[in-house]
Amino acid sequence: MARPSFLDESVALLERTPRVTRELLAGLPEGWLGEPDTVGGWTAKDVIGHLISAELDDWIPRAEIIIRDGTSRPFVPFDRFAHVERDREVPLATLLERFAELRAESLSRLDELVQDEADLELHGRHPELGEVTLRELIATWAVHDLDHLAQIYAALAASQDAAVGPWKAYLGILLRRDAAKAAE
Amino acid sequence: MARPSFLDESVALLERTPRVTRELLAGLPEGWLGEPDTVGGWTAKDVIGHLISAELDDWIPRAEIIIRDGTSRPFVPFDRFAHVERDREVPLATLLERFAELRAESLSRLDELVQDEADLELHGRHPELGEVTLRELIATWAVHDLDHLAQIYAALAASQDAAVGPWKAYLGILLRRDAAKAAE
Repeated sequence: MARPSFLDESVALLERTPRVTRELLAGLPEGWLGEPDTVGGWTAKDVIGHLISAELDDWIPRAEIIIRDGTSRPFVPFDRFAHVERDREVPLATLLERFAELRAESLSRLDELVQDEADLELHGRHPELGEVTLRELIATWAVHDLDHLAQIYAALAASQDAAVGPWKAYLGILLRRDAAKAAE
Repeated sequence: MARPSFLDESVALLERTPRVTRELLAGLPEGWLGEPDTVGGWTAKDVIGHLISAELDDWIPRAEIIIRDGTSRPFVPFDRFAHVERDREVPLATLLERFAELRAESLSRLDELVQDEADLELHGRHPELGEVTLRELIATWAVHDLDHLAQIYAALAASQDAAVGPWKAYLGILLRRDAAKAAE
């Protein structure tokens, strides 16, 4: 069997994220969901809201700019806090389904946009980072998923910070929260 | 609806872990799976192996010691590297199914062991940490899952460390790997 292409590998990860978040979070008791990952950080619900924002305003819109305008038009800066007001009254279960719908639409659009592997070398312009490629955008999309999924685990763990008692000394996911707080 | 008990909340998380790991890892292209989370750390397969070891030798055996022997008999130290030799030739897909079976057996056994909430206050003796309660053991079981799931995301992200290009500057999950390396 041939090794899957970069695009196939990326899509394999990207299409899993809504399934993973649903398996983890749908119906999870509220007691797990109230804490942010760090002081001033994000709860699990915040993270899903942020992933929704990125489906709406980041990945596909930027891929379209790269393909249509190349480096001549910088990407529109992305609002990392768009979810805060927008999703205040929306239940987590609704956000999980919304994210799944948007991700499916994004991957369908990506399939239309990228006709062959050579397209991955097209360049765009990030407002802060400068020139980037479509390949880098897609790799970042997947790693951004992974980064925020890891953040969800830290938020869930936070709710049990006291409950683990002396075992906390062995639990890096809790110790890193304290280290982040101390570094402020 | 009454707030679920500590035990119900813990089980709700613990029973999700095999489903989440299967959704994330079963059939994921090999290109995602080759890197450890940090230099000298663990790949996704290592982590599943370690979770299997803990089902076999840690959580339920220690709960049984607490209930049977209280603080009179310290827990047996747990081999954090038992998976390395044991699972060398075992495919990830097999480990995922094995973990799911063992977790289901563990939760079934936990249901037999803990008859009511008062049992959660029973004490045992950790060989290094001293006195702990059954409640703390169960909380630690769940947070240990979360800690190692987050580690899997870091390992997957590692495979794309170069591919994200300049976006790495925004991706904490990659920056933390470098910070861990620098701190060695």
